[in-house]
Amino acid sequence: MSKSTAERILDTAEQLFAERGFEGASLGEVANRVGIRGPSLYSHFESKWRLYEAVLERLLDPFFAMLDELAAMPPSPERSRASLERMVAHHVAHPNLARLVQQAALAGGPQLDLLVERWYRPFFQSLPAIIPGGGSSDSPESKRITAMIMGFNDMILGHVTLAPLHARLFGFDPLEKEAVAAHIDFLAALTVGGDPGFGGE
Amino acid sequence: MSKSTAERILDTAEQLFAERGFEGASLGEVANRVGIRGPSLYSHFESKWRLYEAVLERLLDPFFAMLDELAAMPPSPERSRASLERMVAHHVAHPNLARLVQQAALAGGPQLDLLVERWYRPFFQSLPAIIPGGGSSDSPESKRITAMIMGFNDMILGHVTLAPLHARLFGFDPLEKEAVAAHIDFLAALTVGGDPGFGGE
Repeated sequence: MSKSTAERILDTAEQLFAERGFEGASLGEVANRVGIRGPSLYSHFESKWRLYEAVLERLLDPFFAMLDELAAMPPSPERSRASLERMVAHHVAHPNLARLVQQAALAGGPQLDLLVERWYRPFFQSLPAIIPGGGSSDSPESKRITAMIMGFNDMILGHVTLAPLHARLFGFDPLEKEAVAAHIDFLAALTVGGDPGFGGE
Repeated sequence: MSKSTAERILDTAEQLFAERGFEGASLGEVANRVGIRGPSLYSHFESKWRLYEAVLERLLDPFFAMLDELAAMPPSPERSRASLERMVAHHVAHPNLARLVQQAALAGGPQLDLLVERWYRPFFQSLPAIIPGGGSSDSPESKRITAMIMGFNDMILGHVTLAPLHARLFGFDPLEKEAVAAHIDFLAALTVGGDPGFGGE
């Protein structure tokens, strides 16, 4: 089963956008790496922006479908642990997801707009009980929960996006099996005092 | 007191490297934004790489000097909290530091080599008691400590690099005073069961 040209374009573009961001990646390089000419690329994706959207859709639609599923499960300590395991496993299996989110946050502009409006905001708005007032509440409890959600997001994305730095420092790949298990243990231990914030209560 | 041309070049290059990474930033744009011509830029910095090194030196030398100082203090719960506060305050005051580290980790190659060899590795090698065998030990305790150090690094850098995403989602800037206090409270609470890993014991 060989991949279609469109799939090979998406694979290559995903890798380049993950390494260099939207602005830093060029369609010419995507076409070169796939081994097609520029006009042929445009017959599949009419613009760089449309290609970027298609790359994000392929990565983010399944991820947020999984988050919706996890959020709908009844809360329990076992569910918290299982949710962490599934989220981390998803990021390890699709490391460009975290890299593209981080690139968009660093670049800002329309890339971040797209990410927030199409995926992040609808998901967080479906969790009103977790962030009172959609995060705008000034209660100490709301601030504590928001700091916790941000901390978990920093760790879950950072485990992938900072992996090359940590691999060089510690002599092993943080995305390998044993290191991923230690990462999940560390995250799970943090939830003893409370839910990590992804859930349907 | 007006800034020297060299300082204005460094400020502008730092901002561009933070937003777009080394490859994505161009010397032509640095010169344009500073309002000088290309040849004038080269009279201050002989190459893009030398400019990048100078930007990193200005950001990372003071940060690692601070880490050396914190690591030399005798351990105590008060010291852990104070160390967290100083590290976070430093990143909030110099947000391009975290952005440049994250950009180098995403890009890999010579940028990450420079960061690791000149700053990160010498610092971590000065902490032999914290990471037995310089991180190469396979003991469960070593794995636990390494996962904790990575988690803290993910949160401390991610708080800055993911701030634009979290600001859009939660309606406040994570780098503003109250949000920074909640972030430090969250990090400090995590150290109740153990040292965050930055220290001289």
